[in-house]
Amino acid sequence: MGLVVQKYGGSSVADAESVKRVAQRIAATKRAGNDVVVVVSAMGDTTDELIELAEQVTPIPGGRELDMLLTAGERISMAVVAMALGNLGLEARSFTGSQAGVITDSAHGKARIIDVTPGRISQALGEGAIAIVAGFQGVSQDTKDITTLGRGGSDTTAVALAAALEADVCEIYTDVDGVYSADPRVVPTARKLARVSYEEMLEMAASGAKVLHLRCVEYARRFDLPVHVRSSFSQREGTWVTNTPQQGAAEEGQDVEQPIISAVAHDRSEAKVTVVGVPDKPGEAAAVFRALADAGTNIDMIVQNVSSVATGRADISFSLPKADGQSAVAALRKIQPTIGFDDILFDDAIGKVSLIGAGMRSHPGVSATFFDALAGAGVNVEIISTSEIRISVIVRAEDLDAAVQALHTAFELDATDEVATVYAGTGR
Amino acid sequence: MGLVVQKYGGSSVADAESVKRVAQRIAATKRAGNDVVVVVSAMGDTTDELIELAEQVTPIPGGRELDMLLTAGERISMAVVAMALGNLGLEARSFTGSQAGVITDSAHGKARIIDVTPGRISQALGEGAIAIVAGFQGVSQDTKDITTLGRGGSDTTAVALAAALEADVCEIYTDVDGVYSADPRVVPTARKLARVSYEEMLEMAASGAKVLHLRCVEYARRFDLPVHVRSSFSQREGTWVTNTPQQGAAEEGQDVEQPIISAVAHDRSEAKVTVVGVPDKPGEAAAVFRALADAGTNIDMIVQNVSSVATGRADISFSLPKADGQSAVAALRKIQPTIGFDDILFDDAIGKVSLIGAGMRSHPGVSATFFDALAGAGVNVEIISTSEIRISVIVRAEDLDAAVQALHTAFELDATDEVATVYAGTGR
Repeated sequence: MGLVVQKYGGSSVADAESVKRVAQRIAATKRAGNDVVVVVSAMGDTTDELIELAEQVTPIPGGRELDMLLTAGERISMAVVAMALGNLGLEARSFTGSQAGVITDSAHGKARIIDVTPGRISQALGEGAIAIVAGFQGVSQDTKDITTLGRGGSDTTAVALAAALEADVCEIYTDVDGVYSADPRVVPTARKLARVSYEEMLEMAASGAKVLHLRCVEYARRFDLPVHVRSSFSQREGTWVTNTPQQGAAEEGQDVEQPIISAVAHDRSEAKVTVVGVPDKPGEAAAVFRALADAGTNIDMIVQNVSSVATGRADISFSLPKADGQSAVAALRKIQPTIGFDDILFDDAIGKVSLIGAGMRSHPGVSATFFDALAGAGVNVEIISTSEIRISVIVRAEDLDAAVQALHTAFELDATDEVATVYAGTGR
Repeated sequence: MGLVVQKYGGSSVADAESVKRVAQRIAATKRAGNDVVVVVSAMGDTTDELIELAEQVTPIPGGRELDMLLTAGERISMAVVAMALGNLGLEARSFTGSQAGVITDSAHGKARIIDVTPGRISQALGEGAIAIVAGFQGVSQDTKDITTLGRGGSDTTAVALAAALEADVCEIYTDVDGVYSADPRVVPTARKLARVSYEEMLEMAASGAKVLHLRCVEYARRFDLPVHVRSSFSQREGTWVTNTPQQGAAEEGQDVEQPIISAVAHDRSEAKVTVVGVPDKPGEAAAVFRALADAGTNIDMIVQNVSSVATGRADISFSLPKADGQSAVAALRKIQPTIGFDDILFDDAIGKVSLIGAGMRSHPGVSATFFDALAGAGVNVEIISTSEIRISVIVRAEDLDAAVQALHTAFELDATDEVATVYAGTGR
């Protein structure tokens, strides 16, 4: 028996019935002898509805006030979850981010946690109560104003609290039953992974897998906190995110050899910009990227063509979030007279596909299989980027699904039967 | 020029359009050179909707959690009002009850304010900002838990903040344009009162007039704070509640003699219980009322019949809120064997009508006119209760409207023309 932190997302507490179901699960964990801390998101679409309300009043809501507004969402869900537990005969107390000691900087809408001082949570646990904590929110150290951590921040709240409380595990409940070897909507034979390493999970989150928030995984890795991603709609084991693959109850008695490749991720949210005919002189490419950085553009993948001997000019292509496209192009137009490049091309009909696996760093031949598979599926590659445990490429948007499916099959990730779906990623 | 506290009720901030309209009014007050503190209720029916949500989860929501839930309502409205002011180019900062320094006891759902320490409000005002404060809520001194002041508590928040900040006036904006000589739905000729004394307003609130919360008036009287009740839908003067009838801009240059009678109030929320055949011995009636007090019953009016010489027994009748009826009857049934009374009759087909006026204490003949008027309207009186500035009677529910109308006419309260409607209560 130990200390369990559970996080329930908005779809798990969408209405009164869902809340009651979640309360049953929390109660079972408590009655099994654990201390339980629960982090909740706002119910269903509440956050979107609040943003819509703000937009009806002003086109540009101030950050401080928008945070005040949005934090009403978790306030509602946490109180209702506590009430539902009360109805099951258990004492539960709800706490705002501020009351739970989630101290952040003052960056409204995207605050970073700088300290967690969960004195009131520890006290509640010590008195036998279940603590229900509002996810996604904190209080700024300097101004004492309410802050939010940005979309998906409730995962980060859960992991940060679990780390500060030295919890045994942080369970992230969601509407899927774990992390899959690919998006099952694209690859019907995708398998649930029994475990992934922090590094793999980070690469997957950065490559478009939406199941866990990037900052939450970074936080878990820093504190070496086991995270268990699972469904609030079933009792099945989900996916364990840990540093030590031997951990995690699912593997007990099974082959625990690490597979080479864990997953294929994809991302439809990026666009590609090509700066045509940049003079191939020292400092010109740097000037391009400095202008983009000044405009606040998050650049992902970059490629520079070999420059033409005839013209002494090269093309630079890079990918970036579609949402940053307009401001990036505007920033480039502004420096065009200074740099003297020929043109700017904007292309949002692209997709990114990534292969992730901690095993690839020690297994040669992965790249060869990767590009063979894409070639076999007739997919043309536009930009390539690699890390020690990831290969990503930009392809045409209409080729994305085929690319994901081809890689999934080529790296033998397809589930072969029902058991493989449940305990995927092991026993190969 | 000065410090103005404004309170806007739920109907004044029911949707985005209303919020923008309210923001215009706040902006005008600020631009006229005033420091402005705004207290807001939850938007429209938000509080009812949150209560409904709680009831879907549990039949008996815990007080601490219900308060946490309900305070989400004002959190939404205050942030949205602050945003709307930002959109008009004014700096506005929202504050929760806790942030505004509204310190209460720990009685969840009906907490009483024990201190107001509005340091952050003063700081915001000093920096030229408009402070938007969540009504209805505070933080408990002992447990640091979020509390609510009970229904209508936003009025109390506004007056308490105004007193602590030594504001020049507390303006209570509502969906009616002031305090009327009777409910205009019952008496179409009712006049708006230009001013009423704290005492009269207290008696009116206690007698069923719903425009101001009883505790808010008590608070204003204790701190001698002028309260201006007015409509958020017009620019007209409303009703001034003060100790000094000479105050209030409306009366300038007019006859300021205090009228004898201010208003007729009515209340449909009470029921009547009759305990039949109580032995007429010392201590028996006391035992009845002790049992009711132990059951938490709020008794309003009481009458005891002259006891029968033949039986040595008397009947005791009293009025009480309908909501307390069931528990009161149960408490009485429990002591019936001990006391030995004959029966308990419960009657919820009653109404209470009250005549209120500070002038009646020095004017004889008010009672005679009162009962003459009711007799003339064929209304039978069941219980009578009086204070120095009020006469109340219980009548049949179906006679209530006729009783109100007859009294309103008999005491010459009917408006005679348009001017009288606007500046009612003066110039007679």
